[in-house]
Amino acid sequence: MLTITRLDAEDARLIIEGARARAEAIGVPMCIAITDEGGNLIAFERMDGGKVTSITIAIDKSYTASAAKKATHEYGASSQPGSPAYGINSAIGGRLMVVGGGLPVLVDGAVVGAIGVSSGTPAQDQDVAQAGIDHFMAARG
Amino acid sequence: MLTITRLDAEDARLIIEGARARAEAIGVPMCIAITDEGGNLIAFERMDGGKVTSITIAIDKSYTASAAKKATHEYGASSQPGSPAYGINSAIGGRLMVVGGGLPVLVDGAVVGAIGVSSGTPAQDQDVAQAGIDHFMAARG
Amino acid sequence: MLTITRLDAEDARLIIEGARARAEAIGVPMCIAITDEGGNLIAFERMDGGKVTSITIAIDKSYTASAAKKATHEYGASSQPGSPAYGINSAIGGRLMVVGGGLPVLVDGAVVGAIGVSSGTPAQDQDVAQAGIDHFMAARG
Amino acid sequence: MLTITRLDAEDARLIIEGARARAEAIGVPMCIAITDEGGNLIAFERMDGGKVTSITIAIDKSYTASAAKKATHEYGASSQPGSPAYGINSAIGGRLMVVGGGLPVLVDGAVVGAIGVSSGTPAQDQDVAQAGIDHFMAARG
Repeated sequence: MLTITRLDAEDARLIIEGARARAEAIGVPMCIAITDEGGNLIAFERMDGGKVTSITIAIDKSYTASAAKKATHEYGASSQPGSPAYGINSAIGGRLMVVGGGLPVLVDGAVVGAIGVSSGTPAQDQDVAQAGIDHFMAARG
Repeated sequence: MLTITRLDAEDARLIIEGARARAEAIGVPMCIAITDEGGNLIAFERMDGGKVTSITIAIDKSYTASAAKKATHEYGASSQPGSPAYGINSAIGGRLMVVGGGLPVLVDGAVVGAIGVSSGTPAQDQDVAQAGIDHFMAARG
Repeated sequence: MLTITRLDAEDARLIIEGARARAEAIGVPMCIAITDEGGNLIAFERMDGGKVTSITIAIDKSYTASAAKKATHEYGASSQPGSPAYGINSAIGGRLMVVGGGLPVLVDGAVVGAIGVSSGTPAQDQDVAQAGIDHFMAARG
Repeated sequence: MLTITRLDAEDARLIIEGARARAEAIGVPMCIAITDEGGNLIAFERMDGGKVTSITIAIDKSYTASAAKKATHEYGASSQPGSPAYGINSAIGGRLMVVGGGLPVLVDGAVVGAIGVSSGTPAQDQDVAQAGIDHFMAARG
């Protein structure tokens, strides 16, 4: 039998709170999604002005980062033409995201969930996702 | 050109807050989704213990209530065998929900969005959805 | 080799014109879709106030009526519990519609396309669809 | 609450009229789709000779331009191999279009909807889409 450690709803709220604060600071309204370690959605928020396309993209970035235990921008690097994971972006009906902005949340070396952010540039999305995780880690002390 | 009134992110948080409080009061952890009047997701929360199947069901109940401007339990009544809308439940790839728990949010007679709740019985889901709307309406004064 | 007779874009506009006039007369804004005899969309219009869920439903009613060469309400009758076509409503990813409002357009005994209407009751949808066909037939003289 | 400005059905007809005239002038029959600012379809027309594959492509170009508030050809540039948005084309079940021919419609600085055109080369599609917007803007005076 396995014992799994997983983000709870309060953890998800904390991560979104940190991401939202960073999105407001850089002036880019975002879609922010939190999934558990199985890739299932815990919480989502579309800030006023966040893009409608980014609803699905943020959820799928978080899904990818949780379920593949890997940051989405790492897939971006490994899926370039000629690279081993080329073409992986259309897997799972297009849910496997290779664009930056999806980051796993690690606690004691284990992936306990993930955050996915979308509406800005991939660099902005990744920055906002990291801010969410940093806020959560700081609150855990 | 049309002018539309729509729930914002803060409104969505208020509705979820009211629904969560009611779900805690009856002891049933729920998935709670809020969509805008076009059926696009604004916010989502899966309470600890909420069902994984209910992630999609709550989102689709809210989508249906927004985009069809009708409570999902009304479709339940009108789609019984022998009734005019029989078979509507599998429309839109199965997204059209006819099970109770999706309620439109009306302001000044217009649908401005909706709430969808899932994890309990349909009656519990509908009760929790109504509590979310009541909390929002009370806060608007 | 087969020779196919099919609605053209101008025919589709005429059918929509007739349906829209009837929808305005009964005061129910509708989604109206026209497909060719292969089930492929020719034209679509969502009147102001037409339901967002009805976009897909109108298109799929028209698809069903064209591609199955049968009015959707006929499927409603033949797919009741205990009937031979029971369960057909979820076929083709839910695209096969068994709710009234999809009617084939027949010219010289052949199906040349179809109209699908949604946003009202199934009876209203079917009435508006018929008005579209009647307008087209009258214009053909 | 948010207040949103959105294209209405008459606006959509005007945009299609302008696009159709341009398509006829260059001799390329097109599929032309108009969506509202939430990405939901308002109107569609397949000109006689427009491609069947282009039905979905035109609708999805318009969806992308509305819901991502960006011209589809801009995604084409930013999603080249080695670029930050590489791989985005398969997002949202492949609905996110990075091929030219989808343009947002802006009024007073806000995206109020979009047009998507398909059947020609991407440059022809974009040209016809722009003609639709120009015709609408001229009619608004």
